[in-house]
Amino acid sequence: MAAKIPVGILGATGLVGQQLIAMLTREQQGGPGEHPWFHITELYASERSAGKSYRDATPWRVDGPFPEEVGRLTLRATDRCGDAQVIFSALDAQAAAEVEPRFAGCGANVVSNASAHRMEADVPLLIPEVNASHVEAVRRQRSGRGWSGAIVTNPNCTAIILTLALAPIERRFGLQQVFAATLQSVSGAGYPGNPAIDLIDNVVPFIPAEEAKIETEPRKILGGSSPGGFQPADFLLYVHVHRVAVRWGHLVSVTARLKKEATLREVRETFEHFYEESPLDLPSAVRPVVVLRDEPDRPQPRWDASAGGGMQVTVGRLRMPAPDLVQFSALGHNLIRGAAGAALLNAELLVARKLIRG
Amino acid sequence: MAAKIPVGILGATGLVGQQLIAMLTREQQGGPGEHPWFHITELYASERSAGKSYRDATPWRVDGPFPEEVGRLTLRATDRCGDAQVIFSALDAQAAAEVEPRFAGCGANVVSNASAHRMEADVPLLIPEVNASHVEAVRRQRSGRGWSGAIVTNPNCTAIILTLALAPIERRFGLQQVFAATLQSVSGAGYPGNPAIDLIDNVVPFIPAEEAKIETEPRKILGGSSPGGFQPADFLLYVHVHRVAVRWGHLVSVTARLKKEATLREVRETFEHFYEESPLDLPSAVRPVVVLRDEPDRPQPRWDASAGGGMQVTVGRLRMPAPDLVQFSALGHNLIRGAAGAALLNAELLVARKLIRG
Amino acid sequence: MAAKIPVGILGATGLVGQQLIAMLTREQQGGPGEHPWFHITELYASERSAGKSYRDATPWRVDGPFPEEVGRLTLRATDRCGDAQVIFSALDAQAAAEVEPRFAGCGANVVSNASAHRMEADVPLLIPEVNASHVEAVRRQRSGRGWSGAIVTNPNCTAIILTLALAPIERRFGLQQVFAATLQSVSGAGYPGNPAIDLIDNVVPFIPAEEAKIETEPRKILGGSSPGGFQPADFLLYVHVHRVAVRWGHLVSVTARLKKEATLREVRETFEHFYEESPLDLPSAVRPVVVLRDEPDRPQPRWDASAGGGMQVTVGRLRMPAPDLVQFSALGHNLIRGAAGAALLNAELLVARKLIRG
Amino acid sequence: MAAKIPVGILGATGLVGQQLIAMLTREQQGGPGEHPWFHITELYASERSAGKSYRDATPWRVDGPFPEEVGRLTLRATDRCGDAQVIFSALDAQAAAEVEPRFAGCGANVVSNASAHRMEADVPLLIPEVNASHVEAVRRQRSGRGWSGAIVTNPNCTAIILTLALAPIERRFGLQQVFAATLQSVSGAGYPGNPAIDLIDNVVPFIPAEEAKIETEPRKILGGSSPGGFQPADFLLYVHVHRVAVRWGHLVSVTARLKKEATLREVRETFEHFYEESPLDLPSAVRPVVVLRDEPDRPQPRWDASAGGGMQVTVGRLRMPAPDLVQFSALGHNLIRGAAGAALLNAELLVARKLIRG
Repeated sequence: MAAKIPVGILGATGLVGQQLIAMLTREQQGGPGEHPWFHITELYASERSAGKSYRDATPWRVDGPFPEEVGRLTLRATDRCGDAQVIFSALDAQAAAEVEPRFAGCGANVVSNASAHRMEADVPLLIPEVNASHVEAVRRQRSGRGWSGAIVTNPNCTAIILTLALAPIERRFGLQQVFAATLQSVSGAGYPGNPAIDLIDNVVPFIPAEEAKIETEPRKILGGSSPGGFQPADFLLYVHVHRVAVRWGHLVSVTARLKKEATLREVRETFEHFYEESPLDLPSAVRPVVVLRDEPDRPQPRWDASAGGGMQVTVGRLRMPAPDLVQFSALGHNLIRGAAGAALLNAELLVARKLIRG
Repeated sequence: MAAKIPVGILGATGLVGQQLIAMLTREQQGGPGEHPWFHITELYASERSAGKSYRDATPWRVDGPFPEEVGRLTLRATDRCGDAQVIFSALDAQAAAEVEPRFAGCGANVVSNASAHRMEADVPLLIPEVNASHVEAVRRQRSGRGWSGAIVTNPNCTAIILTLALAPIERRFGLQQVFAATLQSVSGAGYPGNPAIDLIDNVVPFIPAEEAKIETEPRKILGGSSPGGFQPADFLLYVHVHRVAVRWGHLVSVTARLKKEATLREVRETFEHFYEESPLDLPSAVRPVVVLRDEPDRPQPRWDASAGGGMQVTVGRLRMPAPDLVQFSALGHNLIRGAAGAALLNAELLVARKLIRG
Repeated sequence: MAAKIPVGILGATGLVGQQLIAMLTREQQGGPGEHPWFHITELYASERSAGKSYRDATPWRVDGPFPEEVGRLTLRATDRCGDAQVIFSALDAQAAAEVEPRFAGCGANVVSNASAHRMEADVPLLIPEVNASHVEAVRRQRSGRGWSGAIVTNPNCTAIILTLALAPIERRFGLQQVFAATLQSVSGAGYPGNPAIDLIDNVVPFIPAEEAKIETEPRKILGGSSPGGFQPADFLLYVHVHRVAVRWGHLVSVTARLKKEATLREVRETFEHFYEESPLDLPSAVRPVVVLRDEPDRPQPRWDASAGGGMQVTVGRLRMPAPDLVQFSALGHNLIRGAAGAALLNAELLVARKLIRG
Repeated sequence: MAAKIPVGILGATGLVGQQLIAMLTREQQGGPGEHPWFHITELYASERSAGKSYRDATPWRVDGPFPEEVGRLTLRATDRCGDAQVIFSALDAQAAAEVEPRFAGCGANVVSNASAHRMEADVPLLIPEVNASHVEAVRRQRSGRGWSGAIVTNPNCTAIILTLALAPIERRFGLQQVFAATLQSVSGAGYPGNPAIDLIDNVVPFIPAEEAKIETEPRKILGGSSPGGFQPADFLLYVHVHRVAVRWGHLVSVTARLKKEATLREVRETFEHFYEESPLDLPSAVRPVVVLRDEPDRPQPRWDASAGGGMQVTVGRLRMPAPDLVQFSALGHNLIRGAAGAALLNAELLVARKLIRG
């Protein structure tokens, strides 16, 4: 791969956009490092910010120093396509619904973190460690829509963490029902996000439109993909979401009813062998992708969200109250594993599968 | 009731002891007011504090002014019984196992918040609005143990809140399984409790020995009582606990599978009619005991924990993803409804049922 | 006073507006109770909210139940004056600069919490317990501006708390310099105010335009008033502000250099006698207005902000490292003592001084 | 330097001990890396923990992975000296008063973070970037006390941060008085430290015995050292301390009165040139040691405490209300720059100055 692939970012000034830029431009703690394949050439923002430098328009709120070189780029409006082959989208759903298809029509490969197109019948919803093969639907999408570009999506931040933790046991034992409660950090709401006054000495048992995503998306990811479309997995999810005063790291506590009975030892082994079963050789992939911890009080956001440079999901408190019931808590970094890193991995998958004409 | 009944408090310097004294001595915001039946005459504490005045030994951490009059009482060691007819116990489980039977043997009516004796076959585990009739087991206990006194208990703080929210629907539709996740405040761990450094920018998905209590106690409370003992209700509970950076108020988010199918409207009505079905005329009882809120983002600890002077349980986010599945979040003040107020109500029930020889 | 005086509120949906409505309509904990003199008849809001009911437009975030009756009032735009004799203004500075004079010109007595007009030469900047006589400048203002109404102002929330604590010692010993650092709660920034992500595990040593107000306003309040204008007191203030993750309560730690040397005992007595020296018989006034506490670790926002229904300033950690240096920490409720309660007291002062033609 | 110097740690299980071990054993983010000169051979703990492995006895609460190799060391009691040439002491003052002299008498070079011996006439109180020459007092100490070992100390965590920020301007313009207010993180109180319930929605304007240290130690450090002892600098400090809900990072806001008038530009340059004036070639030293930031709202603990691997002090909000008055806020990582890193630097200084017989 001689020259790096030029990439652009829609919604570059938001938290997910910031995290993407941080991951693309500099060494992460234990993470992917300066990106070997991609080079940022275009940053897009809302009309209010377009024309400003990235530095002047951005309230930098992610770990690590501000990327001075990228900071000098001028923000572009989204009304015209650019030349980047990959366009990461950190737009909100409403903007994404309009802007992303336009860029895909221009020939860009839109790698989207937005929810707008996730559930469409020809749009892959990807976690490369889980359903990499779904990416082939891009060929269907291109021919069907007459695009030279494409849209691929990553799931909702909590859905990613939950699905990565469910995937090992779903594959081996099957799932009937999943009962889950989440404790989600404020960075999941973007910036400015939740007012401090709402979360000091408080938790909020509600996040708009969040539960439906977490109850739906894992079934598409863990389901089948065929020339005719996607076939959702047949288990059901019941989710309670909560917003808590944590900066980053979404925790989800799960009680899952299996189709086949299992022993605790079998379930443990299934988690431990998960990565080996689906090797993935992408620059931003980490091994293992799911880490099992035995301490009685882990995972905790403050200590575990940044495991594996923020790309690992940590599972703990694993227990089985009955042979068909598995309980655990899973945690991941919502901005990295759940958003920026998820999109980055998807873009890398497109390249590795030769779905981007480099 | 001419003269007030003299009462004592075991573990008077802890958070639950403080809250009890606050409730017995002064007007609560919207709460029970100066207690009409009880008068504090004895305070007990650990050997380290015995001999000191209550003021000198107590780091006051509950709402409202320090009760100066009670503050002048000298703390007694627990090695000798006093003259109080009612002894509230806010001891930890280990101390309660030893001290409470001794006081009951001396003739005191021990109204305990401790877990030590809750599950014993002749000890009532009471939520007066739910299973007041279980208190009659005291007669069995007295004759069986040869005590003139007795031990009655209230449940674990979260178990109370959960059980009050489950009771209406259990009574009408039956319960098969209950999947619950809790977000519990730091005051549930007493004082000093959780170190600040463990909860700043963090949550902890673990509280020692807590899940087992929440999975067991509701079944005794919602079960039967007969001369032969207690018969636990036949549903099962699966619980995940979490500690969060909230001062007071435990939130529990529930997905319950019913025995009989229901409509959302029927379930709503069941909650709304709950109190009328089991009237309770005790000084510390509030009406309604379970409050249903319709806002999409309630209950929240900061705004709802002190509803009804801290004696109400607030239920919100009520929804039914299937005719046999009910989902909601319930919240209560763990120090009041879940501990001090629960014990106070139990003591009042003993008096009302003439189980205390006044 | 037969009929109550009709009052309106500019900026009714914000935090200060909410707190005003709470104080005017219901019993506060230890506070002023349903207001004996005033009756809310008009609520004003921004154009975006005008036309909606107060209930629908307001994210209620202050303690106590939502005032259902007021909630049914329709919000008015600020482009037309109403009939209320007293108009409380909780506008931001920019809106206040334009709207308040217009209402005063219509004949309304504008009692403003905004900074826009505080330092003007004919506008009294009032803390009734400190400089009630300055209110007479209203007569000057009316004749000078040709208004039948008037504008009177209360200081910045921190300036009020600091000035109330400084007033006793300034009166008796004089002040040369005042070095102060503040720890200010998020409600001081209104709603939504500071994003949670900025204050979790963090403090921010900056609040726009705040230090200049705290360094200037106390000198006007503690200075003289004559027919020619106001004469600022001649001491200087040097202030560092900090925003902290506290809901309400502003703390200010002070080192003050006196003009006359003093003993610690004399300073203590000065604080204790402060209220007696300046009796004030208004419905919302409390006695004492400054409370001195001797515990080594008070005042604290969580425990002391609501002292006296939020109208008291609590002073603690009083010490004197030298005969001309006094050190202490002072705390007050920024929304009540520092804003809504301050304005309410000012309106009561206008009535008591017969400056409102009732 | 062929073989590494064997070092031991007193108080190894506490937060400062943990941070020391982290700094000695692994690469810090931007920090000193695996230590080139020192090798841990002995860990000491209280009698309660002695005999356990470090892993079993330690609630790891600092950033980065637990150091598994060191974790296998068995904790020793402090009643017998070992063979390490350098003994870092993270004991509390009372234990240090007794244990440190005993180890120094055995020949160990005790590099102490404790306050017990800081102000003694033959004990250097060191910040190597500021008063490295004071370390020579060790020779006096050894001959006077007849020790082959020695005790050297680093200041209180806040005193270090404050003194590093004051040193540049003290050197050039002289100081008359310093008025300071601190916002200190909970890790400054060790583990468990402050109870969460005391800091949720709260700040505490008190830390036992803290203000006296911050008002005294900078004068020794910035003063002279002669064969007859230390001569404190002649300026005075007046300090207010506050505990806030922050994990690490102590912020101190300062108003300093200079002896010589200055311009803001001169003061800026003085900060910028500070490091160059006193070069220091030690493995854990960073350049620059004081960083000046121009953003209006920095420094902030969450973003700046870990600057330079936690070894830099960040100064911001620099302003001058008068030619002899300088105002700024300074921030440093209390566990690293203020404790573990400070001790490490002191040990390196002893080696560099050949005061440790290697």
